[in-house]
Amino acid sequence: MILEIALIDILPGTHADFEAAVAEAVDTVLRPASGFVNLELRHGVERSDSYVLLIGWASLEDHTIGFRESESFVKWRELIGPYFAGAPQVDHWSEVFSTIL
Amino acid sequence: MILEIALIDILPGTHADFEAAVAEAVDTVLRPASGFVNLELRHGVERSDSYVLLIGWASLEDHTIGFRESESFVKWRELIGPYFAGAPQVDHWSEVFSTIL
Repeated sequence: MILEIALIDILPGTHADFEAAVAEAVDTVLRPASGFVNLELRHGVERSDSYVLLIGWASLEDHTIGFRESESFVKWRELIGPYFAGAPQVDHWSEVFSTIL
Repeated sequence: MILEIALIDILPGTHADFEAAVAEAVDTVLRPASGFVNLELRHGVERSDSYVLLIGWASLEDHTIGFRESESFVKWRELIGPYFAGAPQVDHWSEVFSTIL
Protein backbone atom coordinates (compact mmCIF):
# COMPACT_ATOMS: atom_id res chain seq x y z
CA MET A 1 0.00 0.00 0.00
CA ILE A 2 1.16 3.50 -0.82
CA LEU A 3 0.57 6.21 1.75
CA GLU A 4 -0.25 9.72 0.60
CA ILE A 5 0.56 12.31 3.26
CA ALA A 6 -0.98 15.70 2.54
CA LEU A 7 -0.04 18.59 4.82
CA ILE A 8 -2.75 21.21 4.67
CA ASP A 9 -2.68 24.67 6.26
CA ILE A 10 -6.18 26.07 6.60
CA LEU A 11 -7.57 29.56 7.03
CA PRO A 12 -7.81 30.52 10.71
CA GLY A 13 -11.23 29.94 12.22
CA THR A 14 -12.42 27.45 9.60
CA HIS A 15 -11.57 24.26 11.50
CA ALA A 16 -15.13 22.98 11.97
CA ASP A 17 -16.11 23.80 8.39
CA PHE A 18 -12.97 22.16 7.01
CA GLU A 19 -13.46 19.00 9.06
CA ALA A 20 -17.08 18.75 7.94
CA ALA A 21 -16.06 19.29 4.32
CA VAL A 22 -13.44 16.54 4.51
CA ALA A 23 -16.01 14.15 6.01
CA GLU A 24 -18.43 14.92 3.19
CA ALA A 25 -15.72 14.64 0.54
CA VAL A 26 -14.56 11.30 1.91
CA ASP A 27 -18.06 9.84 1.84
CA THR A 28 -19.11 11.19 -1.54
CA VAL A 29 -15.88 11.29 -3.53
CA LEU A 30 -13.05 9.32 -1.97
CA ARG A 31 -14.75 6.11 -0.81
CA PRO A 32 -15.92 5.22 -4.32
CA ALA A 33 -12.48 5.89 -5.86
CA SER A 34 -10.70 2.87 -7.30
CA GLY A 35 -7.77 1.84 -5.13
CA PHE A 36 -8.81 3.88 -2.10
CA VAL A 37 -7.91 1.94 1.06
CA ASN A 38 -8.33 4.18 4.10
CA LEU A 39 -8.02 7.68 5.45
CA GLU A 40 -7.11 9.45 8.64
CA LEU A 41 -7.58 13.14 9.27
CA ARG A 42 -5.37 14.51 12.03
CA HIS A 43 -4.94 17.95 13.54
CA GLY A 44 -1.63 19.58 14.42
CA VAL A 45 -0.68 19.70 18.10
CA GLU A 46 2.09 22.24 17.53
CA ARG A 47 0.47 23.78 14.43
CA SER A 48 -3.14 24.53 15.23
CA ASP A 49 -4.07 25.72 11.74
CA SER A 50 -2.63 22.59 10.08
CA TYR A 51 -3.97 19.15 9.34
CA VAL A 52 -2.55 16.01 7.81
CA LEU A 53 -4.53 13.70 5.61
CA LEU A 54 -3.08 10.19 5.59
CA ILE A 55 -4.60 8.32 2.67
CA GLY A 56 -3.86 4.73 1.77
CA TRP A 57 -3.97 3.75 -1.91
CA ALA A 58 -3.56 0.29 -3.39
CA SER A 59 -1.02 1.73 -5.85
CA LEU A 60 0.61 5.08 -6.59
CA GLU A 61 -1.23 5.31 -9.90
CA ASP A 62 -4.60 4.84 -8.21
CA HIS A 63 -3.98 8.28 -6.73
CA THR A 64 -1.84 10.11 -9.27
CA ILE A 65 -3.70 8.98 -12.37
CA GLY A 66 -6.96 7.24 -11.42
CA PHE A 67 -8.05 9.84 -8.89
CA ARG A 68 -6.23 13.04 -9.76
CA GLU A 69 -7.11 12.91 -13.44
CA SER A 70 -10.79 12.22 -12.75
CA GLU A 71 -13.77 14.47 -12.24
CA SER A 72 -13.78 13.23 -8.65
CA PHE A 73 -10.64 15.24 -7.94
CA VAL A 74 -12.34 18.42 -9.15
CA LYS A 75 -15.25 17.72 -6.80
CA TRP A 76 -12.84 16.88 -3.96
CA ARG A 77 -11.07 20.20 -4.31
CA GLU A 78 -14.36 22.08 -4.67
CA LEU A 79 -15.43 20.73 -1.30
CA ILE A 80 -12.28 21.17 0.76
CA GLY A 81 -10.25 23.71 -1.25
CA PRO A 82 -12.10 26.83 0.00
CA TYR A 83 -10.51 26.36 3.43
CA PHE A 84 -6.90 26.03 2.24
CA ALA A 85 -4.50 28.80 3.29
CA GLY A 86 -2.10 27.69 0.55
CA ALA A 87 -1.24 24.79 -1.70
CA PRO A 88 -1.11 21.50 0.24
CA GLN A 89 2.22 19.70 0.39
CA VAL A 90 1.59 16.19 -0.92
CA ASP A 91 4.06 13.32 -1.01
CA HIS A 92 3.82 9.54 -1.37
CA TRP A 93 5.57 7.01 0.83
CA SER A 94 6.18 3.33 0.20
CA GLU A 95 6.30 0.66 2.91
CA VAL A 96 9.60 -0.35 4.45
CA PHE A 97 8.34 -2.04 7.59
CA SER A 98 5.86 -1.65 10.39
CA THR A 99 5.59 -3.03 13.86
CA ILE A 100 3.09 -3.19 16.68
CA LEU A 101 3.62 -3.83 20.34
CA MET B 1 -3.66 8.03 20.18
CA ILE B 2 -1.20 10.71 19.21
CA LEU B 3 0.70 10.27 15.97
CA GLU B 4 4.28 11.48 15.75
CA ILE B 5 5.35 12.11 12.17
CA ALA B 6 9.10 12.49 11.78
CA LEU B 7 10.44 13.50 8.38
CA ILE B 8 14.04 12.40 8.07
CA ASP B 9 16.45 13.20 5.26
CA ILE B 10 19.36 10.76 5.22
CA LEU B 11 22.82 10.86 3.74
CA PRO B 12 22.87 9.55 0.15
CA GLY B 13 23.81 5.90 -0.12
CA THR B 14 23.02 5.00 3.49
CA HIS B 15 19.51 3.60 2.92
CA ALA B 16 20.20 -0.01 3.87
CA ASP B 17 22.23 0.99 6.94
CA PHE B 18 19.59 3.45 8.05
CA GLU B 19 16.77 0.94 7.66
CA ALA B 20 18.71 -1.68 9.63
CA ALA B 21 19.49 0.87 12.36
CA VAL B 22 15.83 1.82 12.68
CA ALA B 23 14.85 -1.85 12.94
CA GLU B 24 17.41 -2.38 15.70
CA ALA B 25 16.41 0.83 17.50
CA VAL B 26 12.74 -0.14 17.38
CA ASP B 27 13.39 -3.55 18.87
CA THR B 28 15.83 -2.50 21.55
CA VAL B 29 14.71 1.01 22.50
CA LEU B 30 11.24 1.88 21.24
CA ARG B 31 9.22 -1.27 21.95
CA PRO B 32 9.96 -1.16 25.69
CA ALA B 33 9.08 2.57 25.93
CA SER B 34 6.01 3.40 28.01
CA GLY B 35 3.12 4.48 25.81
CA PHE B 36 4.61 3.22 22.55
CA VAL B 37 1.80 1.89 20.36
CA ASN B 38 3.11 1.20 16.87
CA LEU B 39 5.52 2.32 14.17
CA GLU B 40 5.71 2.47 10.41
CA LEU B 41 8.84 3.31 8.46
CA ARG B 42 8.16 4.56 4.94
CA HIS B 43 10.39 5.68 2.11
CA GLY B 44 9.78 8.69 -0.12
CA VAL B 45 8.52 8.02 -3.62
CA GLU B 46 9.28 11.55 -4.83
CA ARG B 47 12.12 12.09 -2.34
CA SER B 48 14.43 9.12 -2.49
CA ASP B 49 16.74 10.26 0.33
CA SER B 50 13.82 10.84 2.70
CA TYR B 51 11.86 8.66 5.10
CA VAL B 52 8.92 9.19 7.38
CA LEU B 53 8.58 7.53 10.74
CA LEU B 54 4.96 7.32 11.84
CA ILE B 55 4.92 6.50 15.54
CA GLY B 56 1.79 6.04 17.63
CA TRP B 57 1.93 7.06 21.30
CA ALA B 58 -0.76 6.60 23.93
CA SER B 59 -0.31 10.26 24.89
CA LEU B 60 1.76 13.26 23.80
CA GLU B 61 3.69 13.18 27.06
CA ASP B 62 4.66 9.55 26.55
CA HIS B 63 6.80 10.83 23.70
CA THR B 64 7.78 14.36 24.66
CA ILE B 65 8.56 13.64 28.32
CA GLY B 66 8.62 9.90 28.98
CA PHE B 67 10.72 9.01 25.94
CA ARG B 68 12.59 12.16 24.98
CA GLU B 69 13.82 12.88 28.49
CA SER B 70 15.02 9.31 29.03
CA GLU B 71 18.29 7.56 28.38
CA SER B 72 16.41 5.59 25.72
CA PHE B 73 16.26 8.68 23.52
CA VAL B 74 20.02 9.07 23.70
CA LYS B 75 20.41 5.45 22.60
CA TRP B 76 17.79 5.91 19.86
CA ARG B 77 19.68 8.87 18.39
CA GLU B 78 23.03 7.07 18.73
CA LEU B 79 21.69 4.27 16.57
CA ILE B 80 19.90 6.20 13.82
CA GLY B 81 21.42 9.69 14.07
CA PRO B 82 24.62 8.92 12.13
CA TYR B 83 22.58 8.63 8.92
CA PHE B 84 20.72 11.94 9.25
CA ALA B 85 21.49 14.59 6.63
CA GLY B 86 19.99 17.22 8.91
CA ALA B 87 17.68 17.67 11.86
CA PRO B 88 14.46 15.66 11.48
CA GLN B 89 11.22 17.59 11.27
CA VAL B 90 8.99 16.21 14.02
CA ASP B 91 5.36 17.11 14.68
CA HIS B 92 2.49 15.53 16.60
CA TRP B 93 -1.02 15.05 15.28
CA SER B 94 -4.21 14.35 17.19
CA GLU B 95 -7.08 12.25 15.86
CA VAL B 96 -10.01 13.92 14.13
CA PHE B 97 -11.49 10.93 12.35
CA SER B 98 -10.56 7.91 10.32
CA THR B 99 -12.36 5.72 7.89
CA ILE B 100 -11.86 2.47 6.08
CA LEU B 101 -13.56 1.16 2.99
